[in-house]
Amino acid sequence: MSYKKVDHSDTSFFQSIIGAGNVFADTASIEKYSRDETDGCSFPPEVVLKPRTTQEISSVMKYCHEHHIPISPRAAGTGLSANSLCVHGGVMLSVERMNKILEIDERSLQVTTEPGVITEHLQNTLQEKGLFYPVDPSSRGSSFIGGNVACNSGGPRAVKYGVVKDFVLNLEVVLPTGEIMWTGANTLKNSTGYNFTQLFVGSEGTLGVVTKIVLKLLPYPKFNNIMLAPFKSMDDASAAVSAVFRAGILPSCIEFMERDAVEYVMNFLGDVTVPLAGETQATLLIEVDGNDVEQIQKDCERIYEVLTNFEVGDILFADSEAQKADLWRMRRNIAYAVKKTNVTVEEDTVVPRAELPELLRHIKAVGKKYNFRSVCYGHAGDGNVHVRILKDQLTDEYWKTEVPKAIREIFEKVVELKGTISGEHGIGWFQIPYMDIKFNKQQINLMRGVKKVFDPHHIMNPGKIFN
Amino acid sequence: MSYKKVDHSDTSFFQSIIGAGNVFADTASIEKYSRDETDGCSFPPEVVLKPRTTQEISSVMKYCHEHHIPISPRAAGTGLSANSLCVHGGVMLSVERMNKILEIDERSLQVTTEPGVITEHLQNTLQEKGLFYPVDPSSRGSSFIGGNVACNSGGPRAVKYGVVKDFVLNLEVVLPTGEIMWTGANTLKNSTGYNFTQLFVGSEGTLGVVTKIVLKLLPYPKFNNIMLAPFKSMDDASAAVSAVFRAGILPSCIEFMERDAVEYVMNFLGDVTVPLAGETQATLLIEVDGNDVEQIQKDCERIYEVLTNFEVGDILFADSEAQKADLWRMRRNIAYAVKKTNVTVEEDTVVPRAELPELLRHIKAVGKKYNFRSVCYGHAGDGNVHVRILKDQLTDEYWKTEVPKAIREIFEKVVELKGTISGEHGIGWFQIPYMDIKFNKQQINLMRGVKKVFDPHHIMNPGKIFN
Repeated sequence: MSYKKVDHSDTSFFQSIIGAGNVFADTASIEKYSRDETDGCSFPPEVVLKPRTTQEISSVMKYCHEHHIPISPRAAGTGLSANSLCVHGGVMLSVERMNKILEIDERSLQVTTEPGVITEHLQNTLQEKGLFYPVDPSSRGSSFIGGNVACNSGGPRAVKYGVVKDFVLNLEVVLPTGEIMWTGANTLKNSTGYNFTQLFVGSEGTLGVVTKIVLKLLPYPKFNNIMLAPFKSMDDASAAVSAVFRAGILPSCIEFMERDAVEYVMNFLGDVTVPLAGETQATLLIEVDGNDVEQIQKDCERIYEVLTNFEVGDILFADSEAQKADLWRMRRNIAYAVKKTNVTVEEDTVVPRAELPELLRHIKAVGKKYNFRSVCYGHAGDGNVHVRILKDQLTDEYWKTEVPKAIREIFEKVVELKGTISGEHGIGWFQIPYMDIKFNKQQINLMRGVKKVFDPHHIMNPGKIFN
Repeated sequence: MSYKKVDHSDTSFFQSIIGAGNVFADTASIEKYSRDETDGCSFPPEVVLKPRTTQEISSVMKYCHEHHIPISPRAAGTGLSANSLCVHGGVMLSVERMNKILEIDERSLQVTTEPGVITEHLQNTLQEKGLFYPVDPSSRGSSFIGGNVACNSGGPRAVKYGVVKDFVLNLEVVLPTGEIMWTGANTLKNSTGYNFTQLFVGSEGTLGVVTKIVLKLLPYPKFNNIMLAPFKSMDDASAAVSAVFRAGILPSCIEFMERDAVEYVMNFLGDVTVPLAGETQATLLIEVDGNDVEQIQKDCERIYEVLTNFEVGDILFADSEAQKADLWRMRRNIAYAVKKTNVTVEEDTVVPRAELPELLRHIKAVGKKYNFRSVCYGHAGDGNVHVRILKDQLTDEYWKTEVPKAIREIFEKVVELKGTISGEHGIGWFQIPYMDIKFNKQQINLMRGVKKVFDPHHIMNPGKIFN
């Protein structure tokens, strides 16, 4: 695919549409927008645009379509798979100025928002009105809701409430041709033609730009309890996860942290300590929420009973809001804690919940075979485990050539267990080398075909999901 | 689009693949498979095939693709929009022999099933193991799970648990080219390329044939309470629905029946009676389920409090399993009761929950303008109301030319209220004339384009969703 380079006349056009002050080609901007949070990736855009309106985006898209200029939409740049980077150069289209919550419908429990709103800000604003948008990726303090939609993000609460796709009712999108359309309706049920809403969720900006998002909301659950359970083996911890659900209890979160993860994050934070007996190999962080304190208490007691069927140590019940916040801070900071100490790479494995023990055993066996350490943690209730592989003493050459083979072995196991190679991070550019493990050529060709319907000139975020 | 007619050599080929005993072209079979449950529609297939395996379907599909023979997949034929009828003749491909539940995974709470399993049979089989597949369209006693997937069915429990799309994790599909593929993974989270699983759900057999379905399950809720609340006005009844959710209560069902619906069904059944005061204009049937009797009782008391803020009459609490069953039998038989007395047509409107009162007022105003009666009932918790229009004294000519204009006025209002023209029945052939109200030409062209990617020779259930 050959693209036109952005030249002076293109820049002039962009300036005429969105204002000269919102078009950036200076070194600092180019540098900033060449990265996201993926380790070791940098792809400089030729120009960065910060439009304010759907109409501006429509004009820009139409122009890029006609002139064969690639365009990568960008939310907050917190992607972990180089999802938004301009791997073919061209235009970086940042939605950061499209940051208004447009309408909170308290009667039908829905919100309409622009894509550039920080997820946590959206959640807090809704909470003030007693409303709940539960999807909380670890990055929620900085990621935008638009990026969450693009990657079909999840997070800890997915186990009870679902992921982004379960809350998106309708999307306003701009297609490369400049056409503006709504993908669905603002309804809980919809059986009216192909589900383009769900096609756009998780499509990582390769089909068009999302400019408005309608989300389903719930009433905010008033209370929650949190417990931390230490296990003598990873097997027992992960088997306990299945047992909790099988007993008919639906916790709002059930997070897995192996011993190393807890140690890294305690060292990193410095001000949070949890008891960690010598024999503890893994911990589960379990949250139960609801509107009835007694009911939550009962559920916790039942969970306690289930856990004690396994080799579990002393279970900690958080006894204050401060302690709850500390436990969550601990869980959310694992990735940062491990990254800080080492060169690392993170993989986003997901399998059916009960296959977790087998997956974890395999990951450790692969690590032994390839001689690396890994720190595993994540959303055990969903079978979604993040595997952070540490470079330690490995040579750059080994890291570049042998570790990808190990990752391949992990992903092959994931697919064998009927799982997939990304639960919530997306494929972006970074994971394309592994897509053949999950999809054959014909399946990838179907994806290419669908993309071509929406994006005939192949300008939308090219080089992502597939080549 | 011109298609090849099925001739003797085609039939011989089909017989060689699926066995002579599973190929039908006799008058009785053709007559039977020319209809579903859509009023007044009949489109005879040229031949009816009843394959047993995915591989057989693959061979048949490849042949039809190469020979340009249209092929319409059929589940139980309970569609309400002529979803599976052979409007272009050709092959009717019935999945009725693909009726095995393949695997119940009690550890990960998933089931893998063939498409020809009756939905209620699937539910009962799961319930015996303490597992719950909640999606229960009114037709569940006869409809197949494959048909439910094709139409993205809903039903009363959608309000708490969601519709089919919220439970389908993965699908095995056969494409017209004969290729067999899995659309996704058996996981609760998936961010690995375009969501083809969700593209197939609700695509009404226009992209391929679904041959295996993996569904997410829940533990079966052990208890439920049911109440029936009579209101003096439809406005109050529908406003009360929003208020219940706003109060933070999530009933498992909240069904709306206008007075006429209750009267029709009591006459029809003969053995079920509920008190119906003279002033009652509408009733709400509310179910709360869970695993804790006390909690359910508390929720019911809170609902009672909310309802009494409106003009509500004496609320009936079902005091036995028999009475609960009767109330559900009543609700589920409304369509049959009304159909039996009159020529009718049913529309499947859906709007954001709080817009229900306005929609209902509009429907009645349109009825007054066009001089027809309508019976309204349905899933108020989802804003999904079925409108059954009665022919009564109207002439055939008026029914054919004027009533569609009235339906158009109803759908225009639905779309104005940010709803859509089908919540759970699908578009099929029957509703195509109204698709322009919801989608413009460019949007329909995108759907056509996506279909072409999967079905380049346009053989899959042609003449459905769009022309």
